[in-house]
Amino acid sequence: MYAPPIHRLITELGKLPGVGARTAQRLALHILRASPQDAAALAASIQEVKERIGLCEICFNFAEGPRCRVCSDERRDAGLICVVEEAGDVIPIERTHEFRGRYHVLGGALSPIDGVDPADLKIAELYRRVADHAEPIREVVLATNSTTTGEATALHIADTLRERAPDVVVTR
Amino acid sequence: MYAPPIHRLITELGKLPGVGARTAQRLALHILRASPQDAAALAASIQEVKERIGLCEICFNFAEGPRCRVCSDERRDAGLICVVEEAGDVIPIERTHEFRGRYHVLGGALSPIDGVDPADLKIAELYRRVADHAEPIREVVLATNSTTTGEATALHIADTLRERAPDVVVTR
Repeated sequence: MYAPPIHRLITELGKLPGVGARTAQRLALHILRASPQDAAALAASIQEVKERIGLCEICFNFAEGPRCRVCSDERRDAGLICVVEEAGDVIPIERTHEFRGRYHVLGGALSPIDGVDPADLKIAELYRRVADHAEPIREVVLATNSTTTGEATALHIADTLRERAPDVVVTR
Repeated sequence: MYAPPIHRLITELGKLPGVGARTAQRLALHILRASPQDAAALAASIQEVKERIGLCEICFNFAEGPRCRVCSDERRDAGLICVVEEAGDVIPIERTHEFRGRYHVLGGALSPIDGVDPADLKIAELYRRVADHAEPIREVVLATNSTTTGEATALHIADTLRERAPDVVVTR
């Protein structure tokens, strides 16, 4: 019913989270009606984030360059680490301007049912951060989500840290 | 709080209809996490529709090439025209497989309050289609929306067609 390029656009838009068939069609018609400049700006911004944004080598949050803004900021407390599931979880915490430490982004939560085990997350990397003393880590705050998988992830990390790094304070 | 490329992506996504600040952020994080292939496919599909899709020279629906699929189809009845406001309005009618004529896409509805007058729509082009006899037009079905502006548009076109082309049957 649609010309193939329109059909492809609707298919690609439909892969976005929360975008069903009807919404994808509406968005596609909007892009078709948009100015060439606006459509080009949207396409370019998608390409640009994929080209220029990678993961911070310290905390695995999104970063332009090797380190994210927080880990590059000398004024942030490198002794205090807040562990979150996703990069998006950093935003509401930063908005409060209350937390002055650094982050550690796991990239998800443990979920045996979905086949997510510790090796799929940046958990070993967290233990390495604590163990290698490049940062003077005193305290790890486990700020995973209050879901079953988030709680299980926090418990797993807390247990391991208490065993491997008894001097580090672990809070939830 | 975000690196500039992420901020730009959120801004561009936020220009889409029905996409608020929170949704734009969620979509951006999804694109950041997506595979480079999936992100490239989305960006390419946006560019492709803008490069390859224009307006049909007959009916002003979206078309790959000079004529849309309906106007290129010899089996469609060129004597019967269904007038709609937007290209998206063609889809539900085509889905019924009941209508065998062609379309005419106005590109909106008359709305003096919003400053939309007949010159902003493809209304003169409709009269020209009826008058120039390139198509043997017998009947025009006015399928504008049942809103105030849609009804006003249908009335305006019906009045003009009855005056200029009294042989053409106009239905709503």
